[in-house]
Parts: sequence; structure tokens; C-alpha cells
Amino acid sequence: MREVVEEIEISEELKVSELIEKFSKTAFNARRLGESAKIFAEMLESNSFIFLTIAGAMVPAGMREIIRDMIDRGFVNALIITGANVTHEIAEALGFKHEKGEANVDDVELSRRNINRVYDIFIPGEAFEGVEKFTSKVFQELNGEYSSYELLWEIGKRLDEKSFLKSAYKKKVPIFCPTLHDSILGLHIYIYGERIRFNPIKDISKIVDLCFQDFPMGIVIIGGGVPKNFAFQAMLLSKGFDYAIQITTDSPQWGGLSGASLEEAKSWCKLKENAKTVTIYCDATIALPLLHAYVVDKIRIRNIINFEKIFS
Amino acid sequence: MREVVEEIEISEELKVSELIEKFSKTAFNARRLGESAKIFAEMLESNSFIFLTIAGAMVPAGMREIIRDMIDRGFVNALIITGANVTHEIAEALGFKHEKGEANVDDVELSRRNINRVYDIFIPGEAFEGVEKFTSKVFQELNGEYSSYELLWEIGKRLDEKSFLKSAYKKKVPIFCPTLHDSILGLHIYIYGERIRFNPIKDISKIVDLCFQDFPMGIVIIGGGVPKNFAFQAMLLSKGFDYAIQITTDSPQWGGLSGASLEEAKSWCKLKENAKTVTIYCDATIALPLLHAYVVDKIRIRNIINFEKIFS
Amino acid sequence: MREVVEEIEISEELKVSELIEKFSKTAFNARRLGESAKIFAEMLESNSFIFLTIAGAMVPAGMREIIRDMIDRGFVNALIITGANVTHEIAEALGFKHEKGEANVDDVELSRRNINRVYDIFIPGEAFEGVEKFTSKVFQELNGEYSSYELLWEIGKRLDEKSFLKSAYKKKVPIFCPTLHDSILGLHIYIYGERIRFNPIKDISKIVDLCFQDFPMGIVIIGGGVPKNFAFQAMLLSKGFDYAIQITTDSPQWGGLSGASLEEAKSWCKLKENAKTVTIYCDATIALPLLHAYVVDKIRIRNIINFEKIFS
Amino acid sequence: MREVVEEIEISEELKVSELIEKFSKTAFNARRLGESAKIFAEMLESNSFIFLTIAGAMVPAGMREIIRDMIDRGFVNALIITGANVTHEIAEALGFKHEKGEANVDDVELSRRNINRVYDIFIPGEAFEGVEKFTSKVFQELNGEYSSYELLWEIGKRLDEKSFLKSAYKKKVPIFCPTLHDSILGLHIYIYGERIRFNPIKDISKIVDLCFQDFPMGIVIIGGGVPKNFAFQAMLLSKGFDYAIQITTDSPQWGGLSGASLEEAKSWCKLKENAKTVTIYCDATIALPLLHAYVVDKIRIRNIINFEKIFS
Repeated sequence: MREVVEEIEISEELKVSELIEKFSKTAFNARRLGESAKIFAEMLESNSFIFLTIAGAMVPAGMREIIRDMIDRGFVNALIITGANVTHEIAEALGFKHEKGEANVDDVELSRRNINRVYDIFIPGEAFEGVEKFTSKVFQELNGEYSSYELLWEIGKRLDEKSFLKSAYKKKVPIFCPTLHDSILGLHIYIYGERIRFNPIKDISKIVDLCFQDFPMGIVIIGGGVPKNFAFQAMLLSKGFDYAIQITTDSPQWGGLSGASLEEAKSWCKLKENAKTVTIYCDATIALPLLHAYVVDKIRIRNIINFEKIFS
Repeated sequence: MREVVEEIEISEELKVSELIEKFSKTAFNARRLGESAKIFAEMLESNSFIFLTIAGAMVPAGMREIIRDMIDRGFVNALIITGANVTHEIAEALGFKHEKGEANVDDVELSRRNINRVYDIFIPGEAFEGVEKFTSKVFQELNGEYSSYELLWEIGKRLDEKSFLKSAYKKKVPIFCPTLHDSILGLHIYIYGERIRFNPIKDISKIVDLCFQDFPMGIVIIGGGVPKNFAFQAMLLSKGFDYAIQITTDSPQWGGLSGASLEEAKSWCKLKENAKTVTIYCDATIALPLLHAYVVDKIRIRNIINFEKIFS
Repeated sequence: MREVVEEIEISEELKVSELIEKFSKTAFNARRLGESAKIFAEMLESNSFIFLTIAGAMVPAGMREIIRDMIDRGFVNALIITGANVTHEIAEALGFKHEKGEANVDDVELSRRNINRVYDIFIPGEAFEGVEKFTSKVFQELNGEYSSYELLWEIGKRLDEKSFLKSAYKKKVPIFCPTLHDSILGLHIYIYGERIRFNPIKDISKIVDLCFQDFPMGIVIIGGGVPKNFAFQAMLLSKGFDYAIQITTDSPQWGGLSGASLEEAKSWCKLKENAKTVTIYCDATIALPLLHAYVVDKIRIRNIINFEKIFS
Repeated sequence: MREVVEEIEISEELKVSELIEKFSKTAFNARRLGESAKIFAEMLESNSFIFLTIAGAMVPAGMREIIRDMIDRGFVNALIITGANVTHEIAEALGFKHEKGEANVDDVELSRRNINRVYDIFIPGEAFEGVEKFTSKVFQELNGEYSSYELLWEIGKRLDEKSFLKSAYKKKVPIFCPTLHDSILGLHIYIYGERIRFNPIKDISKIVDLCFQDFPMGIVIIGGGVPKNFAFQAMLLSKGFDYAIQITTDSPQWGGLSGASLEEAKSWCKLKENAKTVTIYCDATIALPLLHAYVVDKIRIRNIINFEKIFS
């Protein structure tokens, strides 16, 4: 007997977690969002080791505090993120701000005013100058071979408490950045990093180790791209994920990874045969806060398993 | 001086209206959703006459209660909706249920079991038989020429309190259905409606009258399509909308109406030059409940202006 | 044994039909395009009665000559089209032109210059004034009840040979326009059509008759919307289509009709269980000319079956 | 005076290049495709140094021969490509085949049969075993520090003439692969590459040099992602591109790089203020062959400037 679609009733004072609960009984992407929230809660309650992968300009778009909170509450245990997000995170941590801009503007005019645009966000050029001043100094203090996660711990160590890079450093949560060199930060390594050997293969070594842990394995994927693939390919060598949630605005019919169904990943054994999966087709600036708000209200602080020992 | 992007902070017990407020300070579609919620509230507070247009399978997807609530709270003053949504609304009002199905199924197998699919919703064939039994009876009771809104009032009159068709009938809120004949209901008119003359031009006459009222004029557009155009073309003859919110999953670059920017509508004078507009690119099963929850919490019951006299 | 993906080789002087042939051996939407071209050719060779449904601004975008050619070559035997496309077709037939514009413009500025925009197309206001002058005269000459296809034959009769409305009139190909009233043409009926009773239910009667013919039944769907549904719902009463090709830029995961898979239509029995179907996810301004060029080169002029007698 | 939209006329024996020419006079993405073809031809005729960036599964989808042809005809002078495409290219070069599969399948069933799926393409597991056998051997023969383009020349040297890796090696066209480690090839470096130090920063050094050449600079972007950004960020340090064509299925309103307008890149000075740019929103399996066929017919073999000396 199938369940029926239940109509959403909206009341005054409605909590986000209550609405998400209602979503799970409807259809289309509201249902997907509701179901993924429940899977995320199940991941957390079942002692899963959870990867969070982030592509897309989530940090410029105001999502960095959520990322920090997910780390601090123990909701995610390893991150994979793009170099661009890290660059913008450092800028924010240094006090530079992303500004509310517009998408329909004269970009030539912006360039003359030294303003860089990411859709409807403006970033003054000084932000990148500030990052450069910081990284050029940090890179002088370092010496030797670094994976991306080691480099980001070194950077996090030098930032303030509001940065998720600092949280990750303190909690020894690895932040993998396989595209570190594909960012302004990468240009800074090129220019100032003469004493640094960036070795992304070392990241593979670490992430493969993580995939062999004896916990249920879960993953929350924001936007696909390299971060998604980097986690999935590591799992190729291990047993496959038990849980996977994907938030994307891409579509399966274009044939690319970012829109690929999580079922497709089962053919590659990146997910277990019986893995619980949901894809939410939605802008992650909407879906991620909703998802996080649900588990924050339901789980609050995670009953901590000391995954951290893994890194000691 | 531009405003900065503010990071979203999530707390336990977070209310939907609080989160939407935060959304308005971020970027991308979260910002659009936050801004549209504020525009919707402003429409309501400024005594605007508000159209709600609905394309897409919103009724099957569990959104009918929200539509009813919007009418009952006085949040919308006229509807334009597709024939398919009306058909499914009648089915629900008669006690038939939409079921939680799946998208990846064998549709031939479903057809043999007399189950009809709308993406991840299943509708047993009995629902349509039930609607047919009902409409064949209603259509025997009617006689003469009907616009779609008159026909839907006649139908609403005969349904129970949970149906938005009944609410619209009771409050004399017109529900225009320019595609009434492009639905199973239309087939029933074809088969059983020998005493009915369906005259969609009469709908134009009424909606054009509405567009000439001396209130600020607002519109909330779900999914584009004929309902969007039907409101906009009526405004071609009048002064243009003052407010417009659009929720769509279509994109401008395909050149179609459902993805067209609201700015484009200004070139046609369908919107006033200084109209406040926002488009949210998001599945409406997510965005509409969020939007509605915001105004329910902020406005509660609308300080009623008696638009109803217009129809007396 | 599965076929292998074959690499596309490009030669100088390559014909469109040769490239489409190669497409069918690749993947993603190139393969879908190649396969749909072959299905279209099979429809034509198997004496199928073929519907063409058109939503989206195909006429403004320069596709009207292809529509006329499809009618004249006997490639399509009935059309279902939106009122907007008909309005723009009349404008072109009267000598008004759509202009190459831009999408990123100041729409308020355009409105002040009496220019209407459809994405990157500009239409001077005079075009609609010209249409109004024409229709106001035509509507004075008519009297009585009209289905949309009868009204469009009356209009076509009065236009020149380059218009597909004229071709349809001459060949007695019915052009159904279930949204005739949802267009500027509809406004003209409202204003000037006092002697016309527009009866869209009469269109249902005719299209249902067509669906009961004893030919294989085929359909080519451009863009979904009401035209797609109007054909499919008529088939609900008959035996289902044997062939269906769909060109759309919408996606299944939003749950709407325009992006719905053709498999979904099988659950409703709108397609036969073993119907041959392909959906191409592509802007129809690219895909339709490619598709048409393929059959023009392969089939040239269709070995005509006199479907026309049906309408005598 | 604006140009008018011209109707597409289709004739028998129509050449692809003729149709593309017609496309440029229409609207929406057909126009974009036509205009980009002309820009591509202009790039070639103006002695531009041209980057081709490739994200998305173009090699599995049957596009590898086009890539090779573009290199051999001198149409592109540097490539940036994903690790996945390189892995699949090696598989094809070794004689393994991608197969025409289906998207709606049981992926668990596929996994049990050792078949990996990329949307509607099947890849038997043996292909990757074959690649592994090959790379494990190659990696034993190498020693020292390698950028990605050096490593790919080493691999190309060992493959047959049909591989674009071989063409690139012979012509000294650099193929940058900033995500080499984010692929099965990367896993092979991890497992077998103990004598290899992969240094992606060395790629930055080389690509920045290329960006400082005294030619007009052009770029053809397929699908966005890291390859797009890797070229653009190098240009941040130089003078900006003169020409840019982008083929994508992503949309601007999601805020991500792959859908970002090329205008946005001007705010960053990645493009010159007066750069000629067009974005085509289309599946690249359709758009790239059309674009290539146009220049193959118009330009045939490029009047070669010896860019190769740069690498001597």
C-alpha cells in the first residue's frame, strides 16, 4: 500500500524543521528535500563518518557560517572544497566582505572600478590583495611537501575563530582541496610558494585511508564537480558509501557528473548496492540552510564519536 | 554604499520566517526568495489586488491546502490556473488521493495497473472515473453560456470546505482557467456538456475589468505558461502591474515565456516602469510553501479590503 | 551485443543529413537527435498521420518557413500551436519584421521606444497595430461559431503564399490553437469579435476524430505546453500514438508536463506500449532545423496519402 | 537600423556550414551558434593562439576524433581537459570501446556485470583494467617531476596516431590537466607512480607563459568547470582574452562558474573590455560538431603560424 501525498499546511510560527518534515510527504523536490533531511539525520544518528563536498560559490553567497557550524557540531567529518571557496573564505576571515550586487550590470564598468563579480555578488579587488598579503607571508613560514589538507590546516591555524578553516584545524577535520592550484590561492603558491611542494597525490593517500574506516560512510554533495568526484573515486578502492545526499542544479540528461544520478554511481560501486540516496534539484543557497536547520533542530549537538583520533 | 552579504546563522527552533529574512541578505536564489517574500508582504500591506497564477502540477504535489489558505486569508484576490490542476483538485475534493510514487518505474506496467504517473506521483484511474461521475452530473444541472470562472464557481459550490474551489466560490474570488478545455475536465465538457457553451472570451472581459481597478496591482506567478500570459495580456490594455513575483524552473536563455525575466515584461508595458519584481529560480514545491509561511507569520490575516464587492 | 559509440568524423562539405546520421551513433543529446531523425523518417515512410505541436516563440525566432515547408511537403498533417505564434505569423505575413535584438538591454528604454522584446528579438509596436487592423477587418467579415482551426483557415485564406496559415488553408491541414484567446489575437476577438462565437470544444471534437483514423499515428512535439497536452488528451480517448518525438529544454525533475518523459505518457495510455519515442533536450531553434533538414534530404517530397479527404 | 530575423530555409543536400550561416540570422541559441562559428573563424583567420577547454564526458560520447582533428588542423593550440576524459581517451587508444547504453537501467545489475555507466554510455570494467596495465608500465619508465602536460606528452608518445594525446605530443601542443589526480589516472599515479612527482604548479608556470604571447588570444570553452577557470585565472596575470566562445548547459542564475556569462569574466579582466564573446546554451555533443564542421568547411587547414616554436 502506497502512502498518499499529504497537503502542506502552514501555521504561524512554523519552524523550519516542521516544514521540512511536511515536505517529505509531498512530491517533486520538496519531497526530495524532506527525505534527504531524514537521511542526513539517520547518518548522524548511526555514527557515520560524513564527507561534505562543496562546489559552487557557497562562501561568497553567505554559507560559510553554516560550514563552520557543521564542523563544530560534528555534523561533517571531512570536507572537499574548491580552491575558489577557500580563497574567498580567507578573504572573509581577514575581514573583507562580499557585497550584494546585481547580475545585470556593465561588467566593463565594474572592472574599471576594480570590482569583481560572481553573479549577483561584488568583490572589491582589495579583498584579493589582502589575501595575497596574508598568503605570501604564510608561505614564507612553510617549508616542504604539503597535501592540500595540510596546507589548509596551516592556513586555518593562522585565522580567527569564525573561519571554518580554523575549526577544521582545531578539530583535525581534513579539508581536501584537489583544485587548490585552480584558484587565486594557487596563483599565490606559484608566485610565493618556492619553498612549498604541493602534492595532491598525498591527499589521495589520506582520503583513501578515510574510506577504509570501519564506520558507516556518508556523503553530502553540494554542486558536484571535482569535490564530488574526488570522494567517489576514493571509494572506488573501498566498499562504497552507505548514504549519499546530493544538492545540484544540473540535470542528468546533459551527461555530466554534476547532474548524474546517484544511482549511476552504484554502477561504479562508488555507492553500496543498498545505499540510501536522494538528489535534490535546487539552488544550494536555499537547500543547504534548510537541510542544516533540520538537523540542528533534531540532533542539536552530535553525540560525538572520536573520529579525530584517526588523525592523531 | 552597498550592503554586504551576511552569513546565514542557523539556530535551534528556527522559524521559517526568520530564515527567509536571513535569505534576503545572501545571494543567488536564496536572496531572491528572501526579497520576494518582502515584496509579497509589501503587496499585502499596500492594499494591492493580487493575482496568483499557477502552472505545473501543484495540486497533485500537495499544494492545494496552501492555495485554499491564500484565498481564505485574503492573500490572493484572483487566480489563474490550468485545467489539469482543477481536475486534480476536484479529485481530491471528492476524496481521491494522489500517491507517493517513483520516477524510475516501468510505465507500461503502471498503465496495465490503471495507474497514471506525474513524475513521482501516482494517480489511480478511479480518481478520474470519480471526477467524471461528478462532472457529468454537474454539467446536467447547468445550462447556458459560461466563462471558466463562472463554471468553476458552479463546481466549487458543490464541493466541500477543504477545496479551494469552494473557498473561491464563497469569497467570490474568480478562478480563471483559460485552458479548461485542455484537460480531462475539458473532455468531460466535450462529452457531457451539450447544454453548456464554454466562452473563454468572457473571461477576458472579466479579467480586463479587474485590471482596471484603482488599487495597486500585484501578481504571484508559479511556473509561467498560459496562466502567466493570460494575466499579462490583460494588463496590456491597462496600466501594468506594480508588483510581480515569479517562481520558475525555466531559464531566460531558452527564449520562452515561462523563463522570461520580468524585466522583459516591462518592454511590453505589462509591468509598470518602476514595478518591484523578483524571479526565484526554484521548484515551486519548495519556494511557494516558504513564501507563504513567511507572510502567514508576518501578516497572519490580511487587513481586509472588500475587493469582493467588485463581483457582487 | 551492444553497439559501440562511434567517433564523429567531420569532413569538408559535410551535409546536415550525414552529420545527423553520425549523431545517432554517439551519446547524450546528439544521439537522441540522430535517433529522432530516423524515427521521423520512419513515421513518414510508414504512412503515419503526423501531428506537429509548437510552443515557444518559434515564429519570431525565424522558424516559420520551416513550418510552412513541413506542411507543403506533407511532413505534418495537423498542427497545434499557441496563439502567440499565430499572432506573430500574421504580423510576418503582413510584412512586419522581427528584428535581431539583445537580451541584456534596458527594457524601460525599449518600452518608451515602443519596442517589445522576446529574449533577443525586438518587435516594434507597429507590427501589432498592423495585425489589429487586419484582424478587425477579418472579424467583421465572419459570422457564427468557430473552432480555432476554422478561424485560422479563414485567416489563412486572406494571407499570402509564404504563410503557413495559407498553406494549411489550401491543404486543409487543421491548425488547432487551444490558446487562441491567450494571445493578442484573443484580445482582438474580445474587442472586434462581437459576431464570432469562439468554441474551443469544437476543436476537441475534430481532434478526437483525427485520433481515431486508421493510420499509424505520430507526433512531433516542440516545447511541450498546452499544444502537447491537447494532442495527448485527445489520444486518451483513442488508441495512443505509435511514434513520438519531443524537443524540449525543460527537465523531468521539475515535475511539469513540458519536461516529462515520453515514457510517463505511456502510463496514461497516450502512447502505445511499444511506441517509438525519443526526447531531445535542446533549444528547438537548433534541433528543429536539423531534424527537418534530415528528412528533407532523405524523403524530399512525401509519397502523399490523401489525408485531405478526411476534411472534405 | 537593426537587422531583421531571417527565416531559415532548408534545401535538399544542405551543408552544415550553410545551415550554421543561416543560424546566425535567427534568434535564441541557433543565433548564438551561428555567431560563435563566425567568431571561431575570425579567431583562426586572425592568427590567434587558441585554447580549447573540455569538461564533461566528451571522449566517451564520441568526440575524441573531433578533438584530434582540431589539433591536427591547427585549430587549437593548447588544451585544458579533465582527468576523466584523458583516462577514457587512453582506453579508446588502447582499443577498448564505449558502448551505446541506456539511462533508465538497473545500476546495481550493471555493477554486478562489471559495467560502469555514464548517462547512456556503458563502459566495461576491462577498459579500466587495460588502462591500468598500460599506465602502470608507463609510470615505471618515468622518473622525476612532471607537470600534467609533460606527463600527457609522455603518455601520448606511447599511443597510436588516432589519439589526440599522440597528436598533441607530435605537434607539441600542451594538454593541461589540472585535475589529473581527480581521475582513475590519478589513482594509478597514487598506486604506481612512486617515481613520479606530479607538480600542478609547473602547469601554472607554463600556461601563464602562454598567456603572455604576442598574438590575439582566443578560447573555446566546452562545459566550464576547472578547465575554464584554469585558463581564465592564468589570464588574470596577463592581458585578457580577445575572443571567447562557451558551450554550456548550465545557466547563469545558479551562480556557478560553468553557467556564468562571459561578460562576468570581463569584470575580472579575464577577457579584454572589447573581447568578442558568445555563449551557446546547448549540449556540446550537438554544438561542438556543428561548430567544428563550420570551420572545417570554411577554413579547411589553418594557414599555420608556428606556435610550436614556443615549446621548443
